[in-house]
Amino acid sequence: MTLAVHYTAARTLTTVPGTTASPGPGEVELAPAFVGICGTDLHIFHGDMDGRVDRPAVLGHEMSGRIVRVGAGVDGWRPGDTVTVMPLRWDDTCPACRAGHRHICQNLDFIGIDSPGALQQRWVVPASTLVRLPAALPLDQAALVEPTAVAVHDVGRAEVQEGEKVVVVGGGPVGVLIALVAGSRGADVRVVELSAHRRSLAEELGLATWDPVAADVPALVGEWTQGAGADVAFEVSGAAAGVDTAVDVLRARGRLCLVAIHPRPREVNLHRFFWRELSLVGARLYDRADFETAVRLVSQGVVPAHRLITKVVPMAEAASAFAALEGGGDVMKILVDCGDDHQEARA
Amino acid sequence: MTLAVHYTAARTLTTVPGTTASPGPGEVELAPAFVGICGTDLHIFHGDMDGRVDRPAVLGHEMSGRIVRVGAGVDGWRPGDTVTVMPLRWDDTCPACRAGHRHICQNLDFIGIDSPGALQQRWVVPASTLVRLPAALPLDQAALVEPTAVAVHDVGRAEVQEGEKVVVVGGGPVGVLIALVAGSRGADVRVVELSAHRRSLAEELGLATWDPVAADVPALVGEWTQGAGADVAFEVSGAAAGVDTAVDVLRARGRLCLVAIHPRPREVNLHRFFWRELSLVGARLYDRADFETAVRLVSQGVVPAHRLITKVVPMAEAASAFAALEGGGDVMKILVDCGDDHQEARA
Repeated sequence: MTLAVHYTAARTLTTVPGTTASPGPGEVELAPAFVGICGTDLHIFHGDMDGRVDRPAVLGHEMSGRIVRVGAGVDGWRPGDTVTVMPLRWDDTCPACRAGHRHICQNLDFIGIDSPGALQQRWVVPASTLVRLPAALPLDQAALVEPTAVAVHDVGRAEVQEGEKVVVVGGGPVGVLIALVAGSRGADVRVVELSAHRRSLAEELGLATWDPVAADVPALVGEWTQGAGADVAFEVSGAAAGVDTAVDVLRARGRLCLVAIHPRPREVNLHRFFWRELSLVGARLYDRADFETAVRLVSQGVVPAHRLITKVVPMAEAASAFAALEGGGDVMKILVDCGDDHQEARA
Repeated sequence: MTLAVHYTAARTLTTVPGTTASPGPGEVELAPAFVGICGTDLHIFHGDMDGRVDRPAVLGHEMSGRIVRVGAGVDGWRPGDTVTVMPLRWDDTCPACRAGHRHICQNLDFIGIDSPGALQQRWVVPASTLVRLPAALPLDQAALVEPTAVAVHDVGRAEVQEGEKVVVVGGGPVGVLIALVAGSRGADVRVVELSAHRRSLAEELGLATWDPVAADVPALVGEWTQGAGADVAFEVSGAAAGVDTAVDVLRARGRLCLVAIHPRPREVNLHRFFWRELSLVGARLYDRADFETAVRLVSQGVVPAHRLITKVVPMAEAASAFAALEGGGDVMKILVDCGDDHQEARA
């Protein structure tokens, strides 16, 4: 018997018997190994996205695993191959797809939100979503490839160049990953983060951090840049104050990359966009090239994925892991271990 | 005796005897011919910028005129040459200047706001600010070169391409000029404007317009673009509703060019910037290349400057012209005629 974690209502996750289905043409059946919990999963857990998510829902879109079975017409993949999934299905016909922006398809199926995700022991996905993992890459680390692909996409949207001064507002998993990816491109990076725990983790990873409560961040940026301002700011906090900070630190013609989700409109200092000719660019998800780059960065240790993993829990503890993340603070990334051998012992 | 128009306090302009001074090294003395009144001048007239403007102040930065005297060390210019002025003095040492963005110098002297402007019969300016006018270009039309340079800069910042669908939110002088310049680049343009008078003027110039009260503009854009959205939107209205419209009409990866001054923060739908990966770019002023392009567009009639001029008044009527513009509505561009021959008769 296989297991699955079901989201049934706000703050309710239950581990139930899973289903298995033969992969259809062009599909593969996977055995998920590790599944990361991300901020969007938490929004769903809170009940904030019940209008979008059919219940019971299987969440999970940051994952690693192995191929179990291969459907008809699937070339190049074999049972046992280690993979991650780029969890996007686009319609190829909407205006965004036809303009070449398939990852923001106007009818996008985000697998793990709009259709069943990876928090189950058997998962059928289109072979087109598979991304190959190097055999030597541990699967727990590989579960960090998806958020790393987000960071690669964000840094690409911001067009970060070698030698540029970059401020990352928000030092959670995505903020830290953005800082690491920008650093790998030769940027000089500062991470602004409220949580002392997250600041200390970022510092351990070699990142310089600022506490926005203890310090006047725009003044620090002024000193750091001899009065010019930062070249690039990433808004990853989701907070109103984070938007203000990201706008305030930028130099003339500086670029703000908007990564965080702000469900409601925010007051924005548009006068400064005018006065300094700033630009703002929204960044959402990733494309295949971002995933390939992310696999390389995690494999090479440029992104030290193992150091971002706070805890690994069996499926039966998924509910308490979500609750722990909800509390915020002293947690970075939590993975759910979906492997057959690890359920009974810890459940 | 020469005349000058002085701004002395909110809503107070007086015509007084002007001063003359020999142009110093690198300077020229001009006889302004026509001076346009722009939105920033009105802000000053309202008293909104008294913190920035020393009084008595001589306003005016949209102008045409002739050289009267040439200071030492000025090459290439002679008395009688017709010119306009790019009214910017930068310090060449601030970080913005050093990064090559001198027009948004962090210590910019905007001539006509931060230092005396063109509403006087003799005006001394650095020769470096002069822009040559073709002898055949009527000087009243040439007073529209400066706002046309703004529009050229804005269209350049938005990187408008041939065949793109462009929405200009706000059909005052700058909005109409942006629409004309974007159209000259082969864009398909719609102007959104509340005032029936301004819409009808824009239509007479060959521009298609929409009334945002009578119509649902995003729905119209949806029909116009087969559900894709516009490639580019210009926010020229300065209104909160204008910002919303500009954001709502854009396609995936669409670009919003922020032209209007929003003195206070505005609520912005950042979620849509994220979701559609939109970008926003601030645009302020111009550089010399924009001015040269503007001279060409006005000279060739691509920008039919004479059709944008609602009225020409003598200096003594400047105060009532400002008051008329304050009322808004049925006025586009008003010029003040500073020529010697036109003061007594009409004053």
